[in-house]
Amino acid sequence: MTGDVTDGATGDEDGPLLLDRRDGVLVVTLNRPDRLNAVTAEVSELMLDVLNGLMRDPEIQVVVLTGAGRGFCSGMDIQGDDAIAPGADVEGRAQRIYRGIAMGGEVTARLREIPQPVIGALHGAVAGMGAAWALACDLRVADPTTKFVLPFTNLGLSGGDCGLSWLLPRLVGAAKAADILYRAKRLSAEEARELGLITEPAEAGGHLAAALDLAGELLQRSAYGLRRTKELLNASLDAPGLRQQLVAETGIQTLAFFTEDLVEGMTATMEKRPPRFRNR
Amino acid sequence: MTGDVTDGATGDEDGPLLLDRRDGVLVVTLNRPDRLNAVTAEVSELMLDVLNGLMRDPEIQVVVLTGAGRGFCSGMDIQGDDAIAPGADVEGRAQRIYRGIAMGGEVTARLREIPQPVIGALHGAVAGMGAAWALACDLRVADPTTKFVLPFTNLGLSGGDCGLSWLLPRLVGAAKAADILYRAKRLSAEEARELGLITEPAEAGGHLAAALDLAGELLQRSAYGLRRTKELLNASLDAPGLRQQLVAETGIQTLAFFTEDLVEGMTATMEKRPPRFRNR
Amino acid sequence: MTGDVTDGATGDEDGPLLLDRRDGVLVVTLNRPDRLNAVTAEVSELMLDVLNGLMRDPEIQVVVLTGAGRGFCSGMDIQGDDAIAPGADVEGRAQRIYRGIAMGGEVTARLREIPQPVIGALHGAVAGMGAAWALACDLRVADPTTKFVLPFTNLGLSGGDCGLSWLLPRLVGAAKAADILYRAKRLSAEEARELGLITEPAEAGGHLAAALDLAGELLQRSAYGLRRTKELLNASLDAPGLRQQLVAETGIQTLAFFTEDLVEGMTATMEKRPPRFRNR
Repeated sequence: MTGDVTDGATGDEDGPLLLDRRDGVLVVTLNRPDRLNAVTAEVSELMLDVLNGLMRDPEIQVVVLTGAGRGFCSGMDIQGDDAIAPGADVEGRAQRIYRGIAMGGEVTARLREIPQPVIGALHGAVAGMGAAWALACDLRVADPTTKFVLPFTNLGLSGGDCGLSWLLPRLVGAAKAADILYRAKRLSAEEARELGLITEPAEAGGHLAAALDLAGELLQRSAYGLRRTKELLNASLDAPGLRQQLVAETGIQTLAFFTEDLVEGMTATMEKRPPRFRNR
Repeated sequence: MTGDVTDGATGDEDGPLLLDRRDGVLVVTLNRPDRLNAVTAEVSELMLDVLNGLMRDPEIQVVVLTGAGRGFCSGMDIQGDDAIAPGADVEGRAQRIYRGIAMGGEVTARLREIPQPVIGALHGAVAGMGAAWALACDLRVADPTTKFVLPFTNLGLSGGDCGLSWLLPRLVGAAKAADILYRAKRLSAEEARELGLITEPAEAGGHLAAALDLAGELLQRSAYGLRRTKELLNASLDAPGLRQQLVAETGIQTLAFFTEDLVEGMTATMEKRPPRFRNR
Repeated sequence: MTGDVTDGATGDEDGPLLLDRRDGVLVVTLNRPDRLNAVTAEVSELMLDVLNGLMRDPEIQVVVLTGAGRGFCSGMDIQGDDAIAPGADVEGRAQRIYRGIAMGGEVTARLREIPQPVIGALHGAVAGMGAAWALACDLRVADPTTKFVLPFTNLGLSGGDCGLSWLLPRLVGAAKAADILYRAKRLSAEEARELGLITEPAEAGGHLAAALDLAGELLQRSAYGLRRTKELLNASLDAPGLRQQLVAETGIQTLAFFTEDLVEGMTATMEKRPPRFRNR
């Protein structure tokens, strides 16, 4: 099934979403460079197919999300779609806009719900819906050309878009989130880094290489450990309290003691050598 | 109705709360300078009248909250009220104290619940209940004389006061909140800024001017965008999870596509000129 | 009862947990220095006895938690226990591991649930379950040798361990928590301080002295204020929203007005002298 999805999305080299499987890493590239990778309904649907496939993909341990051309993503493709463009008087316009925004938000949710850590490889514009997707990634590398653009209140829109009003306060705190969204701020790579939004800086043009380096580092870790850590960190944000989280943690951690990888991890540590995990 | 409330509170130039409406901005001034703007039951009641009026005020887009005289606010007026002062043996004292604290907390809640962004214009002492109100604002400007004073554990009181135990961990994180409240810390303007509590610093005595500048900047944004962003950021803090927030966001964002302001926002962006929003 | 518990745990000078009561402060020392204070089931059980005793101990106002020997704690004692070591084929192994982890998590929860503020006095390795306990403390002092070690994904384990997946995002934000746990990071004392994990730095070997200084500072505050602040800050993290927290705050704050300590606190402030609280 996953193979099908992958093939489908990469079937066309000029398709809006490119997939590249490399030894445990899946690189997903937003590929509408002439539109600065603006997101259409088709792009979101393809993204959801890929993410749903990753839910049951035992080979891919890390996902990298990046953009082709001059930047990561310019946001929802409003201008490019006559059926949703402002002022258009088209039957079903409300339904079409709702669906476009809702599917963009669904991609945000699925990026967090797949078990694999996702690394955003960012450069150039990271705007609107694209910013939501970038912030939904678990880790982010960014080259110096990166610019987070959150123009909503300059466009007549709300800053609550595809999960941004949920993600941003949890990443930069409530006060800074208000400052950024109310004032439609642009954040340079340096400002984003100071706010803790960037895991690792990359040199100019080096964002994909840096993301693959980071992916390679994660491939050395235990896949069980990584996947369960991602699930638990996400569960933590919604946990009613510490005690509910402890129940989830304890069962998951105990199970690890019955894996071969734990024996390998403990042995490697005692022998002061890198572990060779086999995900069993 | 709103006019009535405004007139009522400004009827007396020497009243404890001054209101000044200026083209979309309402400046609310705590005005008991001889008591460093200590909050009485009367002040809280007047504040609640003003805030309730703002819930249905279509003209005011931004609120500025400031203090007259030497500082922003010295907190609840305990010493000035014989009926609640420590050691007083007065009928109904418990009820009176409970009501005074509860109404202060209600002001905190309403500052967040009105749709308009609120800018705190701070100088001098920002103490106790006044600190809760300042931190309930969406944005804060502060001049160099600003001092956050949280003396609760030195007074025999709990640091949980008028929402402080809810606001502070969400603004500065759980560890720093404990440090500040347990140790009854004073924070200079510079320390508050490093903690992310100050949106913009102001020069000495320039806090109100800086707040009005910031208000002017917000007036250029879409009123619908600002109001919905505030509501969604507040909803986000209490949202059970990302998916609940996405449902709220999607409906609100779709609706914006049916406003004239979106057409103006998109057009202005393409024409590289500032938008002229008309809130319709 | 408390006395019994204390005596029990200190009965043996070479026991795994040392207790030292000093005028309102209880110093708890993890004392298995030959194993870098690795936590056995016995240690967790003794810790829970001590913490349960503190729930009803009117004399102890502040707790200090530290480790004997070269570091604070090396985590759960996996290697030292043949019945839980990786690969062991022992009847009841699953139950024993589950219980060991669950009791470690229970210590985390109880550290937060006791009314007294807990100060972690850290040096050397603060690893695994030990890191969870250190981060469950309300305040932390650390000497320059301190190293937070979170090797879970290198061992085949999840980073969700004894509350870490709940504590870490609330202390350093969601993005940094993922970075640290996915990548099995080590944090130096300096890095931990920049992340806001350290309340006060200490000079080399001076962590216990610095913790006792800080405890002495807290002893000058109102015990009622400190205890209720701790309870409310913890309640805040799980509060459904601001209004629920306001209800809790208002009752607690009003009650303080009926204590002698409030009279003393207000009087001392007016007389510009330190208050002498008597917890009544």
